[in-house]
Amino acid sequence: MKILKHAVLPKGFLANGIASGIKRSKKLDLALFYSDVPAKTACQFTANKIQAAPIKVCLKHLKKNRDFQAVIVNSGNANCFTGNQGLKDAEKTIESLSKALGIKRRGILVASTGIIARRLPLAKIEQGIPELVKSLSAQGINKAKKAITTTDTFAKEFTVKFNLGLKTVTICGIAKGAGMIAPNMATMLCFLLTDANITEQALKKALRISVDASFNCITVDGCMSTNDSVIMLANAAAKNFLIDMHKNFNLFSKALKTVCLHLAKMIVQDAEGATKFIQIKVNQANNFTEARKVALSIANSNLFKTAVYGENPNFGRIIASVGASGVGVKEKDLKIKVSPLKKKEIMVQISLSRGNASATVYTSDLTPEYIRINAEYN
Amino acid sequence: MKILKHAVLPKGFLANGIASGIKRSKKLDLALFYSDVPAKTACQFTANKIQAAPIKVCLKHLKKNRDFQAVIVNSGNANCFTGNQGLKDAEKTIESLSKALGIKRRGILVASTGIIARRLPLAKIEQGIPELVKSLSAQGINKAKKAITTTDTFAKEFTVKFNLGLKTVTICGIAKGAGMIAPNMATMLCFLLTDANITEQALKKALRISVDASFNCITVDGCMSTNDSVIMLANAAAKNFLIDMHKNFNLFSKALKTVCLHLAKMIVQDAEGATKFIQIKVNQANNFTEARKVALSIANSNLFKTAVYGENPNFGRIIASVGASGVGVKEKDLKIKVSPLKKKEIMVQISLSRGNASATVYTSDLTPEYIRINAEYN
Repeated sequence: MKILKHAVLPKGFLANGIASGIKRSKKLDLALFYSDVPAKTACQFTANKIQAAPIKVCLKHLKKNRDFQAVIVNSGNANCFTGNQGLKDAEKTIESLSKALGIKRRGILVASTGIIARRLPLAKIEQGIPELVKSLSAQGINKAKKAITTTDTFAKEFTVKFNLGLKTVTICGIAKGAGMIAPNMATMLCFLLTDANITEQALKKALRISVDASFNCITVDGCMSTNDSVIMLANAAAKNFLIDMHKNFNLFSKALKTVCLHLAKMIVQDAEGATKFIQIKVNQANNFTEARKVALSIANSNLFKTAVYGENPNFGRIIASVGASGVGVKEKDLKIKVSPLKKKEIMVQISLSRGNASATVYTSDLTPEYIRINAEYN
Repeated sequence: MKILKHAVLPKGFLANGIASGIKRSKKLDLALFYSDVPAKTACQFTANKIQAAPIKVCLKHLKKNRDFQAVIVNSGNANCFTGNQGLKDAEKTIESLSKALGIKRRGILVASTGIIARRLPLAKIEQGIPELVKSLSAQGINKAKKAITTTDTFAKEFTVKFNLGLKTVTICGIAKGAGMIAPNMATMLCFLLTDANITEQALKKALRISVDASFNCITVDGCMSTNDSVIMLANAAAKNFLIDMHKNFNLFSKALKTVCLHLAKMIVQDAEGATKFIQIKVNQANNFTEARKVALSIANSNLFKTAVYGENPNFGRIIASVGASGVGVKEKDLKIKVSPLKKKEIMVQISLSRGNASATVYTSDLTPEYIRINAEYN
């Protein structure tokens, strides 16, 4: 497996990013991902009961259609808590793009990130779409990766390539997120593009496994966004022998997980105000879910996170968090190991003596700078 | 109902507090509550799966015995994560007190608060007990209320008196807690003493109702302690006509809830680093539990709490928290009202349009001072 620490579009994909004026800063705010042909599609959305309009629209389209060819994304406005108007605006965005690309509306997905409860500036998006489409290119991914960001201080990008027979398969991922939620901005977004020839069933399962072990294993402030979206397209342009649940599934799945895990870690590294990168590994649990529950309980403890910021080794706070997770841990079975807190990368290891499963969760410390960023007026 | 904003012991109770040397600061750290006669008892303990030794010992004694006469409490050491030694130390504390008071061991309960995972300094406690017992008095409650505190900046105390026929019943409560967990210290403790003549069943039910609507409706940092204990004694010294589930239950229950709610609010008012007192009322829920779940989800959101600190009205963060609660709220039904953030007391009102139940949760803002306090070395 060849690893590239930047985004390289797989065969048959183009992308672009422009400044449409949604952001007052005039930064890039509108991105497009495009496949020459309709692609197999897999998506994962937020578990928040309040979902943004673009997610509702995607879910509706995903019920009717299976193959998609384009994803349009705006930053600066979440199009969330915007009622029927929000749904119309998301559909209008798709309609405009469908005309500009000359493809059916049902082949297009949409995502948004930014301020909640404000109407999407649709006119700006509609005005920007022709330019967005006109200069689509393979290099356009470098604009797209910036156009999806909000308060991120760097773009999250990662690519792997691996051989299947005589063919090379590429999986490219870009993501945004600076903490789970940035000031007045919400969301983690991730777009995964691959030229793999793969069945829809295998693609969906590989994505579910990969997201569970990556984006569902990070937390900055425990705040769940209304807009979280992971959208993956597979266009078969690599012309490899078909990957299915029985053939080369593990190889593909492992490659995809590598991309997702690297992107997830980058989000934590870019967490607002963070001074430490914390890895919490829970071992000897009954199953993965239980292990992750314990790890997340520690990772979401403000007291643990401030202790790490203060470089104050405080086992009591870890113990209290393990017990607060609700997992039936016995005091006498619990083993805790913490690496020196003076370093920038901290490792916490917990053994539960309950079984053989483990999980690793990634988080950051809680700092006065996090509060400063998030207390400021938008 | 007569309300007193300080602690007044009911008939037949004595108390005391001394400095036994557990705290290096030489502050009061050992408290005793004593009833002339064995009293009906009701207790509520932390839901944390890791429970401190004194809680385990109480639970054991509560299985064997129903009426208790004394409660001994130390601050400065939580006696938690201390294994079998911790259990022995809690039992030894009870044994020493039983000798000094000349009562059976099985009539005594014990509570601790302070640093986790350090052995209880038993010798200091044993040395202090004779003095603690010797100067028991009605005024001793003013020492006891200080001896149970850790980082509290003020004592939490409240008393109500009400008439039942020709008799006056008194309920006196004292509590500690400065946020759910103070630096390296854990816990909310509350001791409720009443001279009411009441059945055990009625006492237990009244306490359960009152704790649910008070201490279970506050949060500072969402961190659940290993030592949380609410212990209530009713010694019947008021000689009122027996209160049971059918007679005068609501009157007693209302009075008890008043005491608990006032103490709970005081804990939030004393929250570490807080600059705002926030009340979150969720209306039109299907039931109380659901309403509280939504309110707690907002109250535990770091993003909401920093927004309040920054006096930055941010509806998006409230919306995201409501959805993250897991309660199936519909966007179109959700109504949100927030009082001006410039004030010290903030009121957030949410309507869910699902039913007729409501709940109110109390919390504080998240500030750089909270982080400073909790990042500091113990």
